[in-house]
Amino acid sequence: MYFSSWLSQLCRALSRPIGRTSQPIWVSLCRNVVLSSQRKIPEFSSFVSRTNTCGELRPSHLGQEVTLCGWIQYRRQNIFLVLRDCHGLVQVVIPQDESAASVKKVLCEAPLESVVRISGTVISRPPGQENPKMPTGAIEIQVKTAELLNSCRKLPFEIKDFVKKTEALRLQYRYLDLRSVQMQHNLRVRSQMVMKMREYLCNLHGFVDVETPTLFKRTPGGAKEFLVPSREPGKFYSLPQSPQQFKQLLMIGGLDRYFQVARCYRDEGSRPDRQPEFTQIDIEMSFVDKTGIQSLTEGLLQYSWPSDKDPVVIPFPSMTFAEALATYGTDKPDTRFEMKITDISDVFRNTKSEFLQNALREPQGTVKAICVREGAKYLKRKDIESIRKCATDHFNQEVLPVFLKAGSNWNSAVAKFIVEEHRLELTRIMELREDDVVLLAAGEHEKACSLLGKLRLKCADLLEGRGVVLRDPAQFSFLWVVDFPLFFPKEDNPKELESAHHPFTAPHPSDSHLLYTEPEKVRSQHYDLVLNGNEIGGGSIRIHNAELQRYVLSTLLKEDVTLLSHLLQALDHGAPPHGGIALGLDRLMCLVTGAPSIRDVIAFPKSFRGHDLMSNAPDSVPAEELKPYHIQVSWPTDSEAENSLNHSHHPES
Amino acid sequence: MYFSSWLSQLCRALSRPIGRTSQPIWVSLCRNVVLSSQRKIPEFSSFVSRTNTCGELRPSHLGQEVTLCGWIQYRRQNIFLVLRDCHGLVQVVIPQDESAASVKKVLCEAPLESVVRISGTVISRPPGQENPKMPTGAIEIQVKTAELLNSCRKLPFEIKDFVKKTEALRLQYRYLDLRSVQMQHNLRVRSQMVMKMREYLCNLHGFVDVETPTLFKRTPGGAKEFLVPSREPGKFYSLPQSPQQFKQLLMIGGLDRYFQVARCYRDEGSRPDRQPEFTQIDIEMSFVDKTGIQSLTEGLLQYSWPSDKDPVVIPFPSMTFAEALATYGTDKPDTRFEMKITDISDVFRNTKSEFLQNALREPQGTVKAICVREGAKYLKRKDIESIRKCATDHFNQEVLPVFLKAGSNWNSAVAKFIVEEHRLELTRIMELREDDVVLLAAGEHEKACSLLGKLRLKCADLLEGRGVVLRDPAQFSFLWVVDFPLFFPKEDNPKELESAHHPFTAPHPSDSHLLYTEPEKVRSQHYDLVLNGNEIGGGSIRIHNAELQRYVLSTLLKEDVTLLSHLLQALDHGAPPHGGIALGLDRLMCLVTGAPSIRDVIAFPKSFRGHDLMSNAPDSVPAEELKPYHIQVSWPTDSEAENSLNHSHHPES
Repeated sequence: MYFSSWLSQLCRALSRPIGRTSQPIWVSLCRNVVLSSQRKIPEFSSFVSRTNTCGELRPSHLGQEVTLCGWIQYRRQNIFLVLRDCHGLVQVVIPQDESAASVKKVLCEAPLESVVRISGTVISRPPGQENPKMPTGAIEIQVKTAELLNSCRKLPFEIKDFVKKTEALRLQYRYLDLRSVQMQHNLRVRSQMVMKMREYLCNLHGFVDVETPTLFKRTPGGAKEFLVPSREPGKFYSLPQSPQQFKQLLMIGGLDRYFQVARCYRDEGSRPDRQPEFTQIDIEMSFVDKTGIQSLTEGLLQYSWPSDKDPVVIPFPSMTFAEALATYGTDKPDTRFEMKITDISDVFRNTKSEFLQNALREPQGTVKAICVREGAKYLKRKDIESIRKCATDHFNQEVLPVFLKAGSNWNSAVAKFIVEEHRLELTRIMELREDDVVLLAAGEHEKACSLLGKLRLKCADLLEGRGVVLRDPAQFSFLWVVDFPLFFPKEDNPKELESAHHPFTAPHPSDSHLLYTEPEKVRSQHYDLVLNGNEIGGGSIRIHNAELQRYVLSTLLKEDVTLLSHLLQALDHGAPPHGGIALGLDRLMCLVTGAPSIRDVIAFPKSFRGHDLMSNAPDSVPAEELKPYHIQVSWPTDSEAENSLNHSHHPES
Repeated sequence: MYFSSWLSQLCRALSRPIGRTSQPIWVSLCRNVVLSSQRKIPEFSSFVSRTNTCGELRPSHLGQEVTLCGWIQYRRQNIFLVLRDCHGLVQVVIPQDESAASVKKVLCEAPLESVVRISGTVISRPPGQENPKMPTGAIEIQVKTAELLNSCRKLPFEIKDFVKKTEALRLQYRYLDLRSVQMQHNLRVRSQMVMKMREYLCNLHGFVDVETPTLFKRTPGGAKEFLVPSREPGKFYSLPQSPQQFKQLLMIGGLDRYFQVARCYRDEGSRPDRQPEFTQIDIEMSFVDKTGIQSLTEGLLQYSWPSDKDPVVIPFPSMTFAEALATYGTDKPDTRFEMKITDISDVFRNTKSEFLQNALREPQGTVKAICVREGAKYLKRKDIESIRKCATDHFNQEVLPVFLKAGSNWNSAVAKFIVEEHRLELTRIMELREDDVVLLAAGEHEKACSLLGKLRLKCADLLEGRGVVLRDPAQFSFLWVVDFPLFFPKEDNPKELESAHHPFTAPHPSDSHLLYTEPEKVRSQHYDLVLNGNEIGGGSIRIHNAELQRYVLSTLLKEDVTLLSHLLQALDHGAPPHGGIALGLDRLMCLVTGAPSIRDVIAFPKSFRGHDLMSNAPDSVPAEELKPYHIQVSWPTDSEAENSLNHSHHPES
């Protein structure tokens, strides 16, 4: 008797689509290996004591004697078991005859998730018992020998995808969580994609993979750098946030084309979806301009993109920072959907509404709007309330959201200010139709845009909660954002400047003359790469002139240049023009795999408080072990300790 | 007028052979790219503002208009200059006619090592002026335009290979030192070899490249681990010495075939030719035995070996630890030359020499010898003295070296103990010939072997100093050393045991029964890979049984198992049998490139005291920046500080 209904249930769980593809993950993984650049499938069973992997067996293997190693995923009435390895599942028939009693004993007594090695023959499933949804569903294994390699104690949770676990439990038992189909898939796709990137950079374009140190010295303003005490009293290494200085020094050293899959460190305390250590694809080239880096990056992503997804179309569209802010209210627009910001200031030039008049009289005063198409159909009263709350929570009264229903009744508190003439003009400019909802913000340009940018995403969330698909998860919309300002006013002291990105960014050639007169107006040669509303990379053409770099650091930014004297000196010794980019690998893989969190594309992630929940790192260290480093712990006072204690009681994830 | 004699001198310097190849480095680099797996040459000029690299131009480019970017390496009487980029040198003819005055001005006024972009035509050199030793020696560039991209200030040293610099100066101006032919070569060969390793592992054998954390918790006995203070009072991360725990957890997580080019950290204070951070090719597989890992490693090295060297012959020979000690007096024998240790105890069983009799009566007492062939011809009296000094410096009087000239007169202080009968027997056993020198050591087996192993290398140094080639630098002799003891007695307390390698190493299956009775006799499943007398890798089959692991850790090694509770728990949840290896990439590249120090295969190495001489790391940190980490510096007392100060005045390299 066969239990095809159970198996098909299991297979349904395993064939959960990734993105919009409807293929089982195992199938898509295999296809990926075959299709990408037409290379042959790797030998997955070389060097080990199996002849095949569980997942690869097909009718073409019929009659073959095979040896398999794997975990017992499921057993049914001591007649079948399902054996799993990292390539998939296969059904194993437990022998029932007396002569095979010892084999039966091994296979029936081992707890689930025990590890066994079996040998046997690949046979057809009886007619009608095939499972077309399971890649190995046409065959099964007639076992001859079985060996228990390791027994499994009781598990804290089952290794099945449809068993929901809390993330804290998953992180505590990460070695079990890694057995899940999704984690196996994510880590393999990551490895394959990075390998393709390396092929593109090294083999096609002559880049040199150079490893740079992570024990370095602190950088100016490096407040987010982890410290590493050395054996010299009072001397510390820093774990750098990126290999920025090293990659520039490599260019000065004539390395010409550098890349590294670089481990970076950032100590930001508790931040959700950030990791204290993360990985970036770090690239730098000499004699290059913005266009060169952009083309390289586009080619890189196109070449390495998983072959089971739609090919990446290049070149990517580009938008200035100013345009992104005015149109999407953010420097990382999600361009998968419209709902763009419209400037409607002109409509209200002659309004009688004091509120609007006041807004327009401010410096850079504007009235802006977004249109939520068919919003009236989908948005409930409580949605409108939550939008309003979002607006007031994030912004003060200088910016006021106004809700207008485009249809017959302009149902809004502010509607009374809007005379028929304005209403017609608005309808014309924004092409409003019955059931559209308009969100209106009046105030200073940047603030109004920024508010509407946030409300745009909020509305997309709300509409999608009501079943409207705005952002196709299988669509990948890349966008360059360029022409950022070189400096921003410091938040705590707007009279001083800080770098918008970092102090090595070169000014835009058209604005260089302003550096000495109106530095706040200078645009930079920085570029960000945005994917579906996430910044996945950023880079710039760097300053290669020592004098200019010194002026920016010391005169404009008032930094302590002694910490960078080696770099300034290097720029004086024949530094070539150079530029580069860094892609955030964790975030990119998160988007590629459709994972809900970067913790799902990292083998051993830390909790959002920076803890390893499996091993309990960071941990206490005996005072004796601190001595060689000439440090001691400054234990907090009672009240400080209490704060810290409360803090550590926050839920982990 | 051409200055071919000067150019040929320059080219001689640039064509310095690497190992025994007599090809210029640039040529060998290019050939490497072409030949290895028949892939085409990468596009070195894609995305940038040049059409070609300096080093690639050949007569096939004649008549082409090219744009080149590079550094001015040399200029002769304002008529020629030599332009250099990372691919080589090309001769540029400076135009002399009035109409090109501005071009001439740029090229003649720029200091050496300034960066320029030139455009011009590839032309033939006049007949008789070709330089066959220079890859681009048949052509030169007739310049049309020139642009100064960056000017160079006065250099601390010239970028020429024949200009000798101290290592401290090279490290201080590392960005200039990187421009040397040798550093460019070493870093490129490293990148190419690692890329080939990745192809072998990922594309041919289905390994998954998984990144593991470097912010972890301390491991038992992890006294050499750097600490990283966290923002929680008294809690520290550790920078692990290897991903050992993570790779085992990945196997338990079903990842099956893992590799990583892993950054590792070891704080050993001042050790020459060690680096506080280093890189290993880290590999782990499930369902594998020793033979599987060895075959994989052999295939990996054969596949990735630079194609301009003799192919790697596999399988590698193998030797037990006991055999290596008895034959070469070390666990990392240099098998490129003989001079093996011979046990000559039997010759002296009936000797009248009290010294030899005493030695033989000791537990494991032996008499051993090595034969320095034709030693009498090459070794001077002062050599013999330095050998004798080496012996007494490293060993006490229990072991005594004896020098015997095989020829007519056994010229030695101990010769009088050796009667004619012994002399004939020795001559027969060791096949002694006229002019051979015998070094004899009497004492406990291991000590006698160990002494002769050291003297063997010392003699090789001395003979090579006299022009005898014993160890061909172009020969690569790989050797597996296996069957190590699982434990050694602790040095400071010989009644207790410590792991010979690490506590996760599985016992040899034939010795498992001894674990509970005579653990000191148990051999392990550890294997070391030795190349030319250097340990370049090591690994083992691991313990996959939780109970056995607990017994080893807590009963035999008396370690605090709470620090490893996550791993012990993981072993209980269906851990597959597994094993792996780690190859030390820095040391391997050092041997492959023939570099004198690992600092020559690392872009930004630290001095032997762990300093970055370029940036001055580690550095002081303001007390304010220590606060978030709840640590303060324990400044040493005056006398401690003085010690530390003296210490820091040691020369750096």
